Amino acid sequence: MANTGFDHWAIAHRYRVEVALVRWTPAGELTTGRLLEAMRYSALGGGKRLRALLAYASAEAIGATADLADHAAAAVEMIHAYSLIHDDMPCMDNDALRRGKPTSHVVFGEATAMLAGDALQPLAFAVLLGAPASASGVVAASHQLAEASGAYGMAGGQAIDLANVGQPMTLAALEEMHAMKTGAMFEAAVLLPALLAEEDEATLTALTAYAQKIGLTFQVVDDVLDATADSATLGKTAGKDAANDKPTFVSLMGIDAAIAYAHRLTTEAITALPEHLNTTNLTQLARSMAERTA
Amino acid sequence: MANTGFDHWAIAHRYRVEVALVRWTPAGELTTGRLLEAMRYSALGGGKRLRALLAYASAEAIGATADLADHAAAAVEMIHAYSLIHDDMPCMDNDALRRGKPTSHVVFGEATAMLAGDALQPLAFAVLLGAPASASGVVAASHQLAEASGAYGMAGGQAIDLANVGQPMTLAALEEMHAMKTGAMFEAAVLLPALLAEEDEATLTALTAYAQKIGLTFQVVDDVLDATADSATLGKTAGKDAANDKPTFVSLMGIDAAIAYAHRLTTEAITALPEHLNTTNLTQLARSMAERTA
Repeated sequence: MANTGFDHWAIAHRYRVEVALVRWTPAGELTTGRLLEAMRYSALGGGKRLRALLAYASAEAIGATADLADHAAAAVEMIHAYSLIHDDMPCMDNDALRRGKPTSHVVFGEATAMLAGDALQPLAFAVLLGAPASASGVVAASHQLAEASGAYGMAGGQAIDLANVGQPMTLAALEEMHAMKTGAMFEAAVLLPALLAEEDEATLTALTAYAQKIGLTFQVVDDVLDATADSATLGKTAGKDAANDKPTFVSLMGIDAAIAYAHRLTTEAITALPEHLNTTNLTQLARSMAERTA
Repeated sequence: MANTGFDHWAIAHRYRVEVALVRWTPAGELTTGRLLEAMRYSALGGGKRLRALLAYASAEAIGATADLADHAAAAVEMIHAYSLIHDDMPCMDNDALRRGKPTSHVVFGEATAMLAGDALQPLAFAVLLGAPASASGVVAASHQLAEASGAYGMAGGQAIDLANVGQPMTLAALEEMHAMKTGAMFEAAVLLPALLAEEDEATLTALTAYAQKIGLTFQVVDDVLDATADSATLGKTAGKDAANDKPTFVSLMGIDAAIAYAHRLTTEAITALPEHLNTTNLTQLARSMAERTA
């Protein structure tokens, strides 16, 4: 079942975004404190880099350069890294393990962790604003990133999530929450290269549909894995949804229906892609999202 | 000593930025939680609005429209509001009083307060990215805001500040910290209208010099007021620098020398302004910064 070409592509582009992140995340340290170290601790050194891969695959699909994609990929990974730092903090999910290592506030203390997240967010904008594209393309992409990060995107989804711990939730409400919490940034990852390159509306609409379907797939699979895998495999604390009494696709649909739903969404995502684009890796990414085990 | 014309201008423009902030801060609420309410709680309803006034005065100086200035003014006030929410949190300054009302985490809880700050930051970028200016001007201004907010700006200054509580600090180190922590956002306030309007390098350099001097003035006066005024006058907890054993201009220079320093910086700031600009309100703002009592 492994697709060798795609696996090699994914490895190469995980490496590529790591290089971009190393280039754009400050080296050294401020005169005092460990802020820059904390930023590097969370921004560098791995993770699945799904958002970066989506940006690279999207750039390939429209024929944009990998240099342009670097800026989009690094920006969305920086936003993702900041969100993980803040989500893991004691006042939020209070999680001690992430990507197989202690979370930021465990290592650096809460104040430095919060500031590292606070500083990664504008760094993401600085990187995207420096993309080699037309000024109007850069403005459109940066606006998309701002919307995806804000009250009607990732931060808002997180707030809804927090407010619903221990509460009954309909499937529609759960989907809306995840569309904001996770989906908005997946959408940004797919759209940023196309916005930078000033693609036409039809292409943007098709890529949006694809991104929304795989964003939801990702979350459904996340809920399935949280309920079925162990912490060592996941590199983060497993079973915490049930422990925290969080509504999930598994708690609402059951495991089998959730798995089937993820596969249906994947098919819909792939179908949404326009035929005139070079969609090989976007297609493979959609499949890998449904089939992932960690 | 009151300058009636300037006082009226300041009142009118405090009102003007309030209107802009009301327009661009989301009304209503998400399906659950109190995120939007928390964002409005901190972004709206006052404060000195010094950063907004600097943006309006700078726009006047270069002959840019007030509509353009609205975007710059609201953006810097949103960044400022987010920074206050996070600075006040228990893991940072742990402050319960701000602008005469309970701080965000006291009212909304820590998780919602952190998310409100997290969501105000990209909202500031969204507002600035929507400014009525050339795309290249918008990119330049947004880049300045990103740099001013990040690891070598406000967030970095905050990290240095935290790392130095209870530590001896030289005057040079204290100035560097404040140049990042407070100065960078003052500089952004003054520069954003000029960057949006694509002013020439000489004008940007002069405005930068002005902004750096008044940023420092502001902080010196802040330290003086913290040591001499009471909480009711300040609308925030007074005497907390000494209570927290923080290095300040007062602890390093003494009160009289700090006051004299503030006046010298003010003169230097005014002298830095180019004669061909309409600098009346920038000049008055510099004076008011040195003479303020709250």
